[in-house]
Amino acid sequence: MKAIANLLFEARILKKLPRSGFHFLGVGGESVAEHGFLTIFIGYVLAQIAPGLDQLKVLQMCLLHDLSEARTGDLNYVQKQYVAADEARAVADLTHNIPFGRAMDGVLKEFNAGETLEAQVARDADHLSLILELKALSDLGHQGPEAWLPHIVGRLRTEAGQALAKEVLKTASDAWWFEEKEGPGKGA
Amino acid sequence: MKAIANLLFEARILKKLPRSGFHFLGVGGESVAEHGFLTIFIGYVLAQIAPGLDQLKVLQMCLLHDLSEARTGDLNYVQKQYVAADEARAVADLTHNIPFGRAMDGVLKEFNAGETLEAQVARDADHLSLILELKALSDLGHQGPEAWLPHIVGRLRTEAGQALAKEVLKTASDAWWFEEKEGPGKGA
Amino acid sequence: MKAIANLLFEARILKKLPRSGFHFLGVGGESVAEHGFLTIFIGYVLAQIAPGLDQLKVLQMCLLHDLSEARTGDLNYVQKQYVAADEARAVADLTHNIPFGRAMDGVLKEFNAGETLEAQVARDADHLSLILELKALSDLGHQGPEAWLPHIVGRLRTEAGQALAKEVLKTASDAWWFEEKEGPGKGA
Amino acid sequence: MKAIANLLFEARILKKLPRSGFHFLGVGGESVAEHGFLTIFIGYVLAQIAPGLDQLKVLQMCLLHDLSEARTGDLNYVQKQYVAADEARAVADLTHNIPFGRAMDGVLKEFNAGETLEAQVARDADHLSLILELKALSDLGHQGPEAWLPHIVGRLRTEAGQALAKEVLKTASDAWWFEEKEGPGKGA
Amino acid sequence: MKAIANLLFEARILKKLPRSGFHFLGVGGESVAEHGFLTIFIGYVLAQIAPGLDQLKVLQMCLLHDLSEARTGDLNYVQKQYVAADEARAVADLTHNIPFGRAMDGVLKEFNAGETLEAQVARDADHLSLILELKALSDLGHQGPEAWLPHIVGRLRTEAGQALAKEVLKTASDAWWFEEKEGPGKGA
Amino acid sequence: MKAIANLLFEARILKKLPRSGFHFLGVGGESVAEHGFLTIFIGYVLAQIAPGLDQLKVLQMCLLHDLSEARTGDLNYVQKQYVAADEARAVADLTHNIPFGRAMDGVLKEFNAGETLEAQVARDADHLSLILELKALSDLGHQGPEAWLPHIVGRLRTEAGQALAKEVLKTASDAWWFEEKEGPGKGA
Repeated sequence: MKAIANLLFEARILKKLPRSGFHFLGVGGESVAEHGFLTIFIGYVLAQIAPGLDQLKVLQMCLLHDLSEARTGDLNYVQKQYVAADEARAVADLTHNIPFGRAMDGVLKEFNAGETLEAQVARDADHLSLILELKALSDLGHQGPEAWLPHIVGRLRTEAGQALAKEVLKTASDAWWFEEKEGPGKGA
Repeated sequence: MKAIANLLFEARILKKLPRSGFHFLGVGGESVAEHGFLTIFIGYVLAQIAPGLDQLKVLQMCLLHDLSEARTGDLNYVQKQYVAADEARAVADLTHNIPFGRAMDGVLKEFNAGETLEAQVARDADHLSLILELKALSDLGHQGPEAWLPHIVGRLRTEAGQALAKEVLKTASDAWWFEEKEGPGKGA
Repeated sequence: MKAIANLLFEARILKKLPRSGFHFLGVGGESVAEHGFLTIFIGYVLAQIAPGLDQLKVLQMCLLHDLSEARTGDLNYVQKQYVAADEARAVADLTHNIPFGRAMDGVLKEFNAGETLEAQVARDADHLSLILELKALSDLGHQGPEAWLPHIVGRLRTEAGQALAKEVLKTASDAWWFEEKEGPGKGA
Repeated sequence: MKAIANLLFEARILKKLPRSGFHFLGVGGESVAEHGFLTIFIGYVLAQIAPGLDQLKVLQMCLLHDLSEARTGDLNYVQKQYVAADEARAVADLTHNIPFGRAMDGVLKEFNAGETLEAQVARDADHLSLILELKALSDLGHQGPEAWLPHIVGRLRTEAGQALAKEVLKTASDAWWFEEKEGPGKGA
Repeated sequence: MKAIANLLFEARILKKLPRSGFHFLGVGGESVAEHGFLTIFIGYVLAQIAPGLDQLKVLQMCLLHDLSEARTGDLNYVQKQYVAADEARAVADLTHNIPFGRAMDGVLKEFNAGETLEAQVARDADHLSLILELKALSDLGHQGPEAWLPHIVGRLRTEAGQALAKEVLKTASDAWWFEEKEGPGKGA
Repeated sequence: MKAIANLLFEARILKKLPRSGFHFLGVGGESVAEHGFLTIFIGYVLAQIAPGLDQLKVLQMCLLHDLSEARTGDLNYVQKQYVAADEARAVADLTHNIPFGRAMDGVLKEFNAGETLEAQVARDADHLSLILELKALSDLGHQGPEAWLPHIVGRLRTEAGQALAKEVLKTASDAWWFEEKEGPGKGA
């Protein structure tokens, strides 16, 4: 139980870690946990619309994919060119003494290999999570996100992910509440 | 697809919503999405150590349990005594036109009813997520969290949840990295 | 006296409550107390230029109009479609045991009824406070505020309020210090 | 009207100015506008319990007392020993072309002279606003506010202000909602 | 030694002081210490490319030029028209009892006189530090910085400073990492 | 010149990078630039009181010691156990095309080797910068910094650095303005 309590506090630190890409982007920001939440949600959605997937596997991969950042930190694209993270050892240490540690390790290995359809869906969810944030920042009039978006979109691998990204880029980020309401902004 | 893009932007807004309990607590803070992330992680952990659970159901409930707060806002204990949220209508509107909207609705109904073991585990994960945050704030020397903790602990319903809370309250929030290292703080 | 000390701490919490409309707008932000301060100032100004008003009544209404949000939270336009706040009970509880509680209640009832000229001026001050903030954000190049502004302007009821809004929308938010100075930005 | 629009934007800047004392205190923080809001509220309360006061005058003094900080900045105790602010000129410039500028000037002169009972009440409201904030920070376990409090309390001049301060210092800052509720923290 | 420990804590407060110009600009922000760091770096660069300078003197002037703001606060252009800071007394008090206090005083006098080439380079570094920040904010799409930039550029006195400013204004603030990389934004 | 403009923007990014140790500490925070500023100031002070040092070298080392973090990110003690930063390549890339790049590289090599007295003084300044911050946080009543301090103090190598640390730990962080003033907190 002690090891599990430690594991929970380790996962909690992701709420304190800012995603380092936004330091370079110059606007916006989110914690690793916030990014993780949206990634899981997108993974859930992709798994709902893609028939025949092992949905549980997708959710587990989305949930755990950045957990080792509690030990390695969140490294953005530039930083990754100068820094090598020993993710394997981080995972080994964080799953040490955890009864279901081997299962966690298996999930992460599958995600990183990126070969199964579930892994590809989870990885696309990861990219879509950033695409959504950049699109929302772009809608506010910020200049940086536009230049980043094509690069992130280019990393998508599944058809469902690509189709969803295309739709996201056509959709105003406030349409879900603004369009269907009259008199928006009331009481803001 | 348009409806699904809207749904993603709706889930994204949870990154922007602060949890309102912390305004009253006076220290700390987290977004609804950050709370959600840790809740899902705890749900995953509880499902791993409780045999025979439908783990996918637990994860889905943890993921979706606060989604309607995108429309109702996050209401703390005091606010709930003066404000009535029509969560049912919020869920109806947010799942409108979503191909898997009925499935989402079912997950939320089960969570709110709190009768199945999966629902009780997910609800305990929700409480444990707050317990972890309060414990970490208390470890820093803040006074408020101590008074809140017994109330939150008292809401736990499953044996695994109660056992885990007991362990969490005995564990220093930085033990996962501080105890096993020599020379902590280096390069802070 | 104890009840009055409690009342002061209750009013103080408005400094900790963010105005929830800005979570949806995506830029800017203010506390309920900050919004309240500017509303009172605008009420003061409107009362100065509108002859024959009971100025004290206007100031009291502007000061107290959001006080019950200490208990109900600040609900934006979208949230109000899903959430019903029992403001009457909040006011009853917060004025309970306050020697001048009945007077407070009377002020709030008049504000909410919106029938007297003083109430209409105070309500316009409330809207103008948001208009000023949106105009300032728009001047910085943000995209969202433009779409909100016509809706808020449309709620103004007094002639003085409408005339002032028109002038505000024509005025650069930094004109008060930028235009009359040479060499702005010095020592920024 | 142009001059009045400028005046409103000038008052708005008080939302952006942090109170500089908190930079030295090391914890907490508030904008000049937030401090102003609570000062006006306390002025309202003191005027309610002190019979025979010109309440409108008290509210006006509380509202306007820091307005010139839009031009001079907020100077804390240490800074005031090295910096001399020409408040008179700031007031002259900000009321220039304002139809009711002379009235504003009169209110501020009376406040600064501190001779009338209304001015003393408004000045006590100003001090009490800081006392409330320090007390709330002290309740959270922070060490600095305790040392500051006697100095601020020592500046109170009216009997009502002193009595209220005594009560405030005996009252837990969360008593207004914590004591009368069971199960606080729910849903935090 | 006691006096030196006090001096270090005094310098540390510059990390807590926000630069007040940004409150008026409406976007961005930095502490006095952050501004100081970049100023020193620019001073180092200018001293490297301008032959024959006393580089140590330049670095010292850049390091110490805002130290007295620990006592006077940071005053922006508007504030300086209403507020007179007795910098001499601030320097006298902060160097009091410091063994090398007279040397500090000499450095600051030379900087303020602005007559030596080293002082002019240090003063240009101060202005360039703001120019860099405004340029970066302008690149993000914000409107205010464009209007400020010509005023700040106009204050540059050295040829090297003017040439560098010209280059800075032509350079995208993310070019140092964006242009030379393919696939930027990865892992943001 | 283009390469130099790029270099300035690269140094500027240090204002945006939070020091990652504070994410684990749970309280406080500073940017790499803020840490850098205080490090340079402490280096200046140590060079003043240690006779015979090459002061320019000390200042240069303090100024440049974290510059490569613009490319590698700021890694705390835990992260360094899982992540290897190729600082040499980061320095090579950031000094590429810079006329005085070789000089920069020399300064950093000397700092990292830690063999010269100047390097040891600069490294102690780096540690003292963190000690000051932890002491100030500890004075506010926070619990974490106490446990970290002995580890950081243990890294000091010079006599002057050790003596200064001893004095810092005995000195209240607000003594520089609180003790010598009467009536502190005025106008906070």
